[in-house]
Amino acid sequence: MGHQWHLSISDDLVKVDAIIKDALRSDRKELQEIYDYVTSSGGKRIRPAMCILAHRACGGSCGDDVLHTAAAFEIIHDATLIHDDINDKSEIRRGRKTIHEKYTVTKAVIMGDLMFAIGFKLMGPADRKIIDMVASTSTTMAESEFIQKEFEHKPIVTEKDYMSIIRGKTAMPILACARTGAFMAGADDDVINEISGFALDVGLAFQIVDDILDITGDRLSMGKTAGMDIAEGKPTLPVIYAISDTVLGPRIKEIFKEKEPSHEHLKEALELIRRTDAVERCRSKANDIVENAIPHLSFLKDSEYKDSLISLARYIVNRDR
Amino acid sequence: MGHQWHLSISDDLVKVDAIIKDALRSDRKELQEIYDYVTSSGGKRIRPAMCILAHRACGGSCGDDVLHTAAAFEIIHDATLIHDDINDKSEIRRGRKTIHEKYTVTKAVIMGDLMFAIGFKLMGPADRKIIDMVASTSTTMAESEFIQKEFEHKPIVTEKDYMSIIRGKTAMPILACARTGAFMAGADDDVINEISGFALDVGLAFQIVDDILDITGDRLSMGKTAGMDIAEGKPTLPVIYAISDTVLGPRIKEIFKEKEPSHEHLKEALELIRRTDAVERCRSKANDIVENAIPHLSFLKDSEYKDSLISLARYIVNRDR
Repeated sequence: MGHQWHLSISDDLVKVDAIIKDALRSDRKELQEIYDYVTSSGGKRIRPAMCILAHRACGGSCGDDVLHTAAAFEIIHDATLIHDDINDKSEIRRGRKTIHEKYTVTKAVIMGDLMFAIGFKLMGPADRKIIDMVASTSTTMAESEFIQKEFEHKPIVTEKDYMSIIRGKTAMPILACARTGAFMAGADDDVINEISGFALDVGLAFQIVDDILDITGDRLSMGKTAGMDIAEGKPTLPVIYAISDTVLGPRIKEIFKEKEPSHEHLKEALELIRRTDAVERCRSKANDIVENAIPHLSFLKDSEYKDSLISLARYIVNRDR
Repeated sequence: MGHQWHLSISDDLVKVDAIIKDALRSDRKELQEIYDYVTSSGGKRIRPAMCILAHRACGGSCGDDVLHTAAAFEIIHDATLIHDDINDKSEIRRGRKTIHEKYTVTKAVIMGDLMFAIGFKLMGPADRKIIDMVASTSTTMAESEFIQKEFEHKPIVTEKDYMSIIRGKTAMPILACARTGAFMAGADDDVINEISGFALDVGLAFQIVDDILDITGDRLSMGKTAGMDIAEGKPTLPVIYAISDTVLGPRIKEIFKEKEPSHEHLKEALELIRRTDAVERCRSKANDIVENAIPHLSFLKDSEYKDSLISLARYIVNRDR
């Protein structure tokens, strides 16, 4: 793809992986099995990368404290995915059974709590400001998940509602990673704020693309089922745009309102959405957001890390999984 | 009951309640409704009390930071109860529907995460040592819950296994409250360790009594269903003792192994357990633990707070709800 955003920090990311593996250890056989299952899932490591790249782009030398914090972000992210999958009734993630499918809902609830606590523990020695920010971000994230649930199967969500939900759910956590990295490099407030603005936009674009992939079915390449968001009545941007289509919209809206749509209806809705310009509009929006975000980085001196931040942003828009 | 342990700190506890109410606020109608539901449930506030009493008994003057930390302990505790109730399939708590029964499992998962994060946020300005300890305690707690799940319906659990599970699940979190309170009063390490030892034992006794109440049905007075632990196959101390009864044990063991025991079998098991000396042995054990814990407090100068700590410990053994 040409987006080699991780090359400049590949040593750091290897260390982060080792820290994660080390933090997720247990003498209990089944617990260790689940930890291994989680760590071997091949996540994209976008959050630690955002933290480390922001840090290095601000001149930081990425000491142990930064690596531990970056690892903590990934573990907390994994924890939220485990709970999200329960809540979205997702059976497959990254081509494999989700934790609750493989090990029961109960164990998945506990695993999420456990990994959330491990993440905070790993972050323990960090500055109070960081812990406070991460806790606030976690609060906002959970609130946004809650609000999203309230909107399920209700085709009344506006683009503004959607943007506000994904801001809290996805963009703020990614912002927190970048902000922390820059803060730990001792960057000035101005620089920290610009990098935060960049990361927030990248986070917004990331979620829009995620929601596109649910429609285009490209996700199948990574083993997810297409159309899950429609099945769950999750009001994503492609769905919002598609429902506004004067010709095809009404039927899409009808299916979206169904609490448990049949496989046929789901297929029909996906097909109809793909025939509107919804996906194209979303792609274009995500692209605009990212391109408009890049100037935020003009505060930074040129470096391979700055280049990587830009590549990472563009990779996020162009990815197909 | 004569156990007026809360009188010496009733002003502090009123302030803690106000902090909790203030931390659990939202513009979203349903979110606020759930917060109100949680805060009006009439919890016993044992964790904040333990924190404040330990603090004041060590000569602390209970400033805002201590009150906020005490409130954080209660919120984190409430968060774990919400998730525990999902995992134990409990329908009733404190005489009312549990969160997942009233608002769906999904919302209960999110609410637990949200309140956990709010607790950590409230603790944000605290010393790193405290945050680290609370995070470690949360880890241990979740691990213990996990181990307990592995033992479900398996009548092979020993008293030692049980004590190790409740140590992580209940006693360590109560220890963390006391330790934090003493630490924030600037107490010497020796004193902090003695108070921690006391609180750990009180926590162990607390859980043993909780498990007795599930058998004796006294819990009905607070609206819980008796026998839930047997239904869930949770290996509690009264069950372990009862199964070891040479005459009645084998039948109790049989029912305990059933994945979904009928109402009749449940009633039969409860009746049989009550006819063994299991409850009496547990009561006596809890009592011994608490009485042996009290000498830990001899390090402390006499004060009404020290007296309250002792009353709190004895209240915990003698409570019927």
